[in-house]
Amino acid sequence: MTYKTVRINPVSPAASRGSVLVIYTGGTLGMVYEATGNQLIPFEFEQIIEKLPEIQRLDFEITFVTLYEPIDSSNMSPELWIEIAGIIAKKYEQYDSFVILHGTDTMAYTASALSFLLEGIQKPVILTGAQLPIGIARSDARENFLTALEIAAATNDLAQPLVTEVCIFFNSVLLRGNRAKKKESSDFNAFHSENYPILAKAGVHIEYNLPYLAPQSKHKKLFVHQKMDARVTFLKIFPGISRDVVRAILNIPGLKGVVLETFGAGNAPTSSWFLNEIELAIGRNLLLFNVSQCDGGRVTQGHYQTSKFLQQVGVLSGSDITAEAAITKMMFVLGQTDDLNKQKKLMETPLRGEMSI
Amino acid sequence: MTYKTVRINPVSPAASRGSVLVIYTGGTLGMVYEATGNQLIPFEFEQIIEKLPEIQRLDFEITFVTLYEPIDSSNMSPELWIEIAGIIAKKYEQYDSFVILHGTDTMAYTASALSFLLEGIQKPVILTGAQLPIGIARSDARENFLTALEIAAATNDLAQPLVTEVCIFFNSVLLRGNRAKKKESSDFNAFHSENYPILAKAGVHIEYNLPYLAPQSKHKKLFVHQKMDARVTFLKIFPGISRDVVRAILNIPGLKGVVLETFGAGNAPTSSWFLNEIELAIGRNLLLFNVSQCDGGRVTQGHYQTSKFLQQVGVLSGSDITAEAAITKMMFVLGQTDDLNKQKKLMETPLRGEMSI
Amino acid sequence: MTYKTVRINPVSPAASRGSVLVIYTGGTLGMVYEATGNQLIPFEFEQIIEKLPEIQRLDFEITFVTLYEPIDSSNMSPELWIEIAGIIAKKYEQYDSFVILHGTDTMAYTASALSFLLEGIQKPVILTGAQLPIGIARSDARENFLTALEIAAATNDLAQPLVTEVCIFFNSVLLRGNRAKKKESSDFNAFHSENYPILAKAGVHIEYNLPYLAPQSKHKKLFVHQKMDARVTFLKIFPGISRDVVRAILNIPGLKGVVLETFGAGNAPTSSWFLNEIELAIGRNLLLFNVSQCDGGRVTQGHYQTSKFLQQVGVLSGSDITAEAAITKMMFVLGQTDDLNKQKKLMETPLRGEMSI
Amino acid sequence: MTYKTVRINPVSPAASRGSVLVIYTGGTLGMVYEATGNQLIPFEFEQIIEKLPEIQRLDFEITFVTLYEPIDSSNMSPELWIEIAGIIAKKYEQYDSFVILHGTDTMAYTASALSFLLEGIQKPVILTGAQLPIGIARSDARENFLTALEIAAATNDLAQPLVTEVCIFFNSVLLRGNRAKKKESSDFNAFHSENYPILAKAGVHIEYNLPYLAPQSKHKKLFVHQKMDARVTFLKIFPGISRDVVRAILNIPGLKGVVLETFGAGNAPTSSWFLNEIELAIGRNLLLFNVSQCDGGRVTQGHYQTSKFLQQVGVLSGSDITAEAAITKMMFVLGQTDDLNKQKKLMETPLRGEMSI
Repeated sequence: MTYKTVRINPVSPAASRGSVLVIYTGGTLGMVYEATGNQLIPFEFEQIIEKLPEIQRLDFEITFVTLYEPIDSSNMSPELWIEIAGIIAKKYEQYDSFVILHGTDTMAYTASALSFLLEGIQKPVILTGAQLPIGIARSDARENFLTALEIAAATNDLAQPLVTEVCIFFNSVLLRGNRAKKKESSDFNAFHSENYPILAKAGVHIEYNLPYLAPQSKHKKLFVHQKMDARVTFLKIFPGISRDVVRAILNIPGLKGVVLETFGAGNAPTSSWFLNEIELAIGRNLLLFNVSQCDGGRVTQGHYQTSKFLQQVGVLSGSDITAEAAITKMMFVLGQTDDLNKQKKLMETPLRGEMSI
Repeated sequence: MTYKTVRINPVSPAASRGSVLVIYTGGTLGMVYEATGNQLIPFEFEQIIEKLPEIQRLDFEITFVTLYEPIDSSNMSPELWIEIAGIIAKKYEQYDSFVILHGTDTMAYTASALSFLLEGIQKPVILTGAQLPIGIARSDARENFLTALEIAAATNDLAQPLVTEVCIFFNSVLLRGNRAKKKESSDFNAFHSENYPILAKAGVHIEYNLPYLAPQSKHKKLFVHQKMDARVTFLKIFPGISRDVVRAILNIPGLKGVVLETFGAGNAPTSSWFLNEIELAIGRNLLLFNVSQCDGGRVTQGHYQTSKFLQQVGVLSGSDITAEAAITKMMFVLGQTDDLNKQKKLMETPLRGEMSI
Repeated sequence: MTYKTVRINPVSPAASRGSVLVIYTGGTLGMVYEATGNQLIPFEFEQIIEKLPEIQRLDFEITFVTLYEPIDSSNMSPELWIEIAGIIAKKYEQYDSFVILHGTDTMAYTASALSFLLEGIQKPVILTGAQLPIGIARSDARENFLTALEIAAATNDLAQPLVTEVCIFFNSVLLRGNRAKKKESSDFNAFHSENYPILAKAGVHIEYNLPYLAPQSKHKKLFVHQKMDARVTFLKIFPGISRDVVRAILNIPGLKGVVLETFGAGNAPTSSWFLNEIELAIGRNLLLFNVSQCDGGRVTQGHYQTSKFLQQVGVLSGSDITAEAAITKMMFVLGQTDDLNKQKKLMETPLRGEMSI
Repeated sequence: MTYKTVRINPVSPAASRGSVLVIYTGGTLGMVYEATGNQLIPFEFEQIIEKLPEIQRLDFEITFVTLYEPIDSSNMSPELWIEIAGIIAKKYEQYDSFVILHGTDTMAYTASALSFLLEGIQKPVILTGAQLPIGIARSDARENFLTALEIAAATNDLAQPLVTEVCIFFNSVLLRGNRAKKKESSDFNAFHSENYPILAKAGVHIEYNLPYLAPQSKHKKLFVHQKMDARVTFLKIFPGISRDVVRAILNIPGLKGVVLETFGAGNAPTSSWFLNEIELAIGRNLLLFNVSQCDGGRVTQGHYQTSKFLQQVGVLSGSDITAEAAITKMMFVLGQTDDLNKQKKLMETPLRGEMSI
């Protein structure tokens, strides 16, 4: 990651105003028309003052950092998550808040991953992006980006940041990052959070849902983790799934953990071959994490016969976690410790508000 | 499947009234308190007149058929889908409409599968169930079941059925079966259809969305298919997915098809190893079907670089199909023909309104 | 009001279980089929055990009180509100909670009125009803009523009631009574609260939105007010409204207050004749309360030129209050004091969480 | 109305491209920062190319017409509706479509009024506006305006306009103008249509709900009406409403019609004094139009005792019309004919898709 830096509205020496670091990673948002007006090209942040003149009237300093070669978010990776977390670590004292411009496709994965990597964060980290490039006339890029900047800069009466967690802002709503999912591939209203309330809504005013924001904590210090272990995968259950399929996936060489995508409140078939394969996998110390295929509600292992066995043999309950948060949490937890019991305990413990107890 | 039959409100000799066959498969709905009032037990349809006295006032004949041993819907299977389709085939002329009582967990899978198996159906097939057992005081079972019966019996001015397709009715809304998903594991409002409008809404009146109902066709005859090939699975893409995982899944012994769950509008990583594995799988004549992880919107392969390659090597576009309809459609298509080209063509063709062109 | 009382599941001498008083006022809910099964008639609470057998399994005592002649809620009146409040006053110590069966048409008005009359209430008062009579097969009456009973009986770990305010429960959601509106005349999902979050949602479980429930207060005592002054009306502004109309309404003989239904954030025409009539009305000591025609958002007088004058001449801001709460609050405030300044102050002060500051 | 005209992207001589006339009436949208960047001022359309550079890349000709003195929409009036309709009449042949920039407060009233005045229109008339001025960084003005332009220019394969009626476009949704209401005073999602489906949704693509668009008709010709009679008002019923209030409003000097805002499905009190006042008003040839206070559902006079009398004495049923469409329809109908029977017939007949039969 090489940086190109542009600074806008530099903070005056006697600054009461805040400063925002914008990290540009790529994605649909970052495209503009080239000079002749016909061709979409990735835009240079040097040109942003020209393209977004409103930004100059914002009452805080904005600094841009950009990847040398911005990526389509389908190519996002654990390595890049660690790199982004590293940038925030390095610049944490220097800036009051962070905005990450990111493609929508994997934004919920990245937001989840960053929430785990950035333990104890006490400043806003807001991811945003767009469904249409900023260069398209009716793009949502401008509103999303400018509002994310305002939210990042928002403080309470004591000049403390209102938001002290990793969030996604998109189409007027602020969501907890590790609770968000990309729900729509073509609506502007692309993200939602089925199991946790929205944290703020932007309209004529920006209204915050104060009781549900992560509470501030003076005593917490940022600790940035630097390891994720991606030897994991999903196993989505469906009627008719065969023993060959289950066995093959649970026996992928080197695999450390599997997110089981089950029915309803965490249910799976009770056929003996299925239970047998699950039991064998547990016996091989594979971490199995039970997450529902439903967006809303939660896994309550043991409520029905069809989830009871999973609990008995040691499948871990994902409660109301999203699939995106589940898989990134598993990578994070596997990177934290090699102790299986500690891993199991961490998986079932809410670490960053990503699941309900 | 052994049948126990109970007939209510028998059609009089000079009947203008309709007849409904209710097929009970199991699920949460079918539980009542036993005599002392404390214990939930599966209910016998012989007792239903007592438990649902309202049913006796409905203006049509209702006949119940029940499995000898009702199942939890997590144990639903392609074999049972074929059996249920077979019951409908056998009773098609005898009854005006069909209501299937089914657990919610796999109801969307079953509805999709039946839509494919029951080609040319011209009578209503309505699946319904409940989030709470009928024996629980504030259960949704009663409303769901009784309204499903009314919808099944609904006719237009020409005494033709209004609904001539496989649907799910749940919590006041009627959805096309192969467009529905279980969205919520604990809300009563459990099913939704993100890419197709609701077909009817029940309130004081039941209002039908006529332009979006499957059109009636006098010339169509029911043809009931009897084969599904379940040698398929899902491969859900996520940032950090490893070559080992992709290779293992695409090489599961005997596998005939894979539903790829991709990002956004059908995007996947562009790393060469990934593309290489995809290409190899296509080379092995594996059917690959591209479906979005997003509930809404559609796969538009070729729009971004990250989906273009998938199209080029022969990954089939799932358009706006649900994961549930995709996997059952694949089982159905694989069961229809061994000709790979025909399979590919069928996969990309809307067969029962399950996807948009 | 003459009472007929039926008691179900009487509390045992060593009761840890609660007791609910059900006040039946009439409305759509209260109809059943008479013996031969063809005719809808108002039901007698003596028959309820038979019609709602589930009620006998509820774990608390239920006592019914019914009007001698139940009314259609279109005939609800301030006199009856005072009478209902009086019943609660009289039975407040004897029962743990109160459920009011009420027609949907004016339920939001009644809930608002009761919230003002029952100052300092520390027990649940839940209004509910139905869109279809309990005797209709697919009625919502059963679910609404039984769930309202469960919510009324809900307590926290300290055996204190969870809800300590006047609420409406309808179609799975619990709303603050003076924040609710009847939004739909034929959907089951009839009530909503645009400016305040829902307080609880009933599904497989009933989940409470704890931060938004009225907080309990040991030191508050119930004080039941007994006076409302109904010499009030609405004046809804529209483009083209004539001086004759405005003048006539503001000069209705004996009128004490008017709820102005304005545009957007509290805006009205700035034509001099309009402002003049408003000023004259203020001069005659008429209480003018500015409420938006929009369901959501709030009156912010002074933001636009078109609302600034209203503020300057003394029109009171209704903030985000509903029209239903506004008109009943005005009746309540006018009944409290004859002192115009006190009236004005009370109107702009949130008294029962009915509006935001 | 004096015009200032700016033309952008002039249609070339051999034009296959369309042309749009933009009529600017005022409202929140039309404000920008003056040169020094601190003060909001109404913007001149001469400057629009500079402020909205994207507009130059649109593939059609845009011509602006602006009022000499733009108004806040709270001051909108029947006279201005007739003037706007007159502009469209005059320019109807010259332009392919019309976009009206309008304040949000009375946009639904104006859209309703124009739908009645512009009989037989076969070209799009799209009203739009904004919740925040175009000069505010995170304003919704740009997206709303640019998308409205695209929708206005949208044609089918035969180069015919897709939309041939008066609509409101706001926050990604296109609504039938006389079905829309301003629901939110501060959310960007400000308009909704509870009783008619949305006509189009803008996201990555703009998707039209074809079965619900007004059908094109080659044989219809535009006929622009020029008269509205505003001697009308609302009478909103509430529990406790007094005879003095009802009598005063129904006896306003010169009044020709009253929109009764009733409970639920069209219900009102059955007290004899109330019915008597209604009967007297009917006897005085006052037009009474029954509209529900509920946003959704419809008036079904006669269903309950409380609406039956209204029907019997000759109160007209508004079915599922909005209050906004009801009052403007009444002004329109009163302006059409002095024949009371014709007026009554017109009021109960859907004229422009504004109500269901």
